Amino acid sequence: MIHDYNQEALDLHKAHHGKIELKTKVPMNDRGDLSRAYTPGVAEVCKEIAKDVSNAREYTLKRNTVAIISDGSAILGLGNLGAHAAIPVMEGKAAILKSFADVDAFPICLDTQDTEEIIKAVKQIAPVFGAINLEDIAAPRCFEIEERLRMELSIPVMHDDQWGTATVVLGGLINALKVTGRGETKDVKIVVNGVGSAGVAISRLLLASGYTNILFCDSRGVIHDVREDLTKEKKELLSTSSLPGFDGALADAIKGADVFVGVSKAGALTKEMAESMNKEGIIFALANPIPEIMPEVAKEAGVAVIATGRSDFPNQLNNSLIFPGLFKGMLDGNVKQFETEMFVRAAHALASHVKEPTKEMILPTMFDKELVSVIAKSVI
Amino acid sequence: MIHDYNQEALDLHKAHHGKIELKTKVPMNDRGDLSRAYTPGVAEVCKEIAKDVSNAREYTLKRNTVAIISDGSAILGLGNLGAHAAIPVMEGKAAILKSFADVDAFPICLDTQDTEEIIKAVKQIAPVFGAINLEDIAAPRCFEIEERLRMELSIPVMHDDQWGTATVVLGGLINALKVTGRGETKDVKIVVNGVGSAGVAISRLLLASGYTNILFCDSRGVIHDVREDLTKEKKELLSTSSLPGFDGALADAIKGADVFVGVSKAGALTKEMAESMNKEGIIFALANPIPEIMPEVAKEAGVAVIATGRSDFPNQLNNSLIFPGLFKGMLDGNVKQFETEMFVRAAHALASHVKEPTKEMILPTMFDKELVSVIAKSVI
Repeated sequence: MIHDYNQEALDLHKAHHGKIELKTKVPMNDRGDLSRAYTPGVAEVCKEIAKDVSNAREYTLKRNTVAIISDGSAILGLGNLGAHAAIPVMEGKAAILKSFADVDAFPICLDTQDTEEIIKAVKQIAPVFGAINLEDIAAPRCFEIEERLRMELSIPVMHDDQWGTATVVLGGLINALKVTGRGETKDVKIVVNGVGSAGVAISRLLLASGYTNILFCDSRGVIHDVREDLTKEKKELLSTSSLPGFDGALADAIKGADVFVGVSKAGALTKEMAESMNKEGIIFALANPIPEIMPEVAKEAGVAVIATGRSDFPNQLNNSLIFPGLFKGMLDGNVKQFETEMFVRAAHALASHVKEPTKEMILPTMFDKELVSVIAKSVI
Repeated sequence: MIHDYNQEALDLHKAHHGKIELKTKVPMNDRGDLSRAYTPGVAEVCKEIAKDVSNAREYTLKRNTVAIISDGSAILGLGNLGAHAAIPVMEGKAAILKSFADVDAFPICLDTQDTEEIIKAVKQIAPVFGAINLEDIAAPRCFEIEERLRMELSIPVMHDDQWGTATVVLGGLINALKVTGRGETKDVKIVVNGVGSAGVAISRLLLASGYTNILFCDSRGVIHDVREDLTKEKKELLSTSSLPGFDGALADAIKGADVFVGVSKAGALTKEMAESMNKEGIIFALANPIPEIMPEVAKEAGVAVIATGRSDFPNQLNNSLIFPGLFKGMLDGNVKQFETEMFVRAAHALASHVKEPTKEMILPTMFDKELVSVIAKSVI
């Protein structure tokens, strides 16, 4: 029986009117306090920053503050609900960043879904922030927005739906291969089902890490070069993989596969498909809230490792394992920009942090007290 | 001897890296907490807001959160230092709002000084916020930005340099007239020196309150209708005043005046000018950090009431007396938009809150524990 959190969540949010508030970290009790924190003393601080904007890192909240930015176009698995409906998710990520990594974050939900306007708005509000966390922005615009902002801003920019997810998947895969007796080989056949923001980033990170035997499937079946409907991201993935693809469906691709990574939709993987995988199969069924295949069904099909995005099953693969530590590392280390190599390092750090992984526990939980600092150190 | 806060302010800001941080207001300790505050429970909250965006006020930080927005074009008395240098002032205002009114505020320093781009950016980031505090934006663009945002947004918008200052000046004037024996008469001659953002709003509020005998001076002297360099705001003030103006300088305008309101620059009012005022003269010398005339000089010139913007002299006229209560009232009362009449009411509430005003204490201090709720109640 799955616990239903819907009413409890509504009650909690209503009782507190959200989940985060501001806090003053200097005394504000008398005229002397005000003269240091505000006028007249603050003028001297302004002048120091005017001399050199990099001083903002020393003298203001910028050093430890992340903007969590969404246009509300791809909220969780709910789709395009708009800017206001995105607030609870962004506020939740801010609460996680503060609670787990002592990073200050503020939600910015943009009332536009135009690529150029989003890019411009983020650049315009960037001065106060030390890093940008893009969130729940639909593909394919999320790719261009992230790429452009990384080039055009001097602070780190990461789309967490892409790279948080990809890093957790890579970390999980490293240990899943180990616990199924495959060791450190990269010679495994992988099927990635769903080639949206998460699917593209997962595939890019796997390919960059040497896992090159990948078949990609989208809602129209296996991706191959005869198809004329491929986005530039899908073409790029296809050209990087060692496997050429073919005219077929997921049911064809999955036969004999070692690994299935689903970032698609509820029930996309049937028991029969799971049964057709290689022995000691590995399934990451990450559709939320209902996975591509339920864990008990996958087990019945003989799969060795089954992971989902849910907290109520074993092996939760969740961005929250990664993004608090990533942002902590970037801010504390004053690292200029995210790079693919950092996500690879973070994935290895995540995997190595489990001393004795098992089929039921390939990764640590986000409540592991050392995890944030382990991930943070890996990116610096 | 005036205490120099410069080094203390630098030290404070560097030690804490700014003045505000985030705080989580719900428990985040275990899977159950996360399931209510984040996935899966948060999806239900998103759906409630998608049904009706006004639910964001119930379920998110929006209800109690103000954006403090600047383009860095008119920082304190320092001028156009840009977005990064504005951060310490905006962070200071956020710290004041939290400490004095328990209102959450977040600084947004925009990397653009174009009127249309500022308007667009503020509208785009508005979903998360319950109100907008514009700050340190240069005239005349501040007028259009505020006016347009009030029309185009469904949340309250106030430029504090205008209306916070104007409300404090009106409140101070009410009590200054009382303590100089003029009672409640509005038949006093007023000179407003400086017709930037604060000067225009002060003049508008005085005129709206029935103080119509006003001469306006800018850097070129007295405003009158033969001059061809008048902005539309200056023309509007001139046409509303009972006094037509003339071809002359501040030294001519001030002769026989009952009240001088300076929002101009250090030393603009000489001892001789002050001596030429009517007996029991009232001077509000609000240039920061050095006033138009120093209090001891004004006293030597025979002036009865001298107020400045500084905390180290008696009679500090500071926006901080007003803006925390104004925003508290707007948010708690779910008031749709600021209107001139609210500032008039707030000024009267501010003045009435001093039971026995004296020449050395025409207004309460911002440390008065009842002040915020008195001002908040006045606007609802």
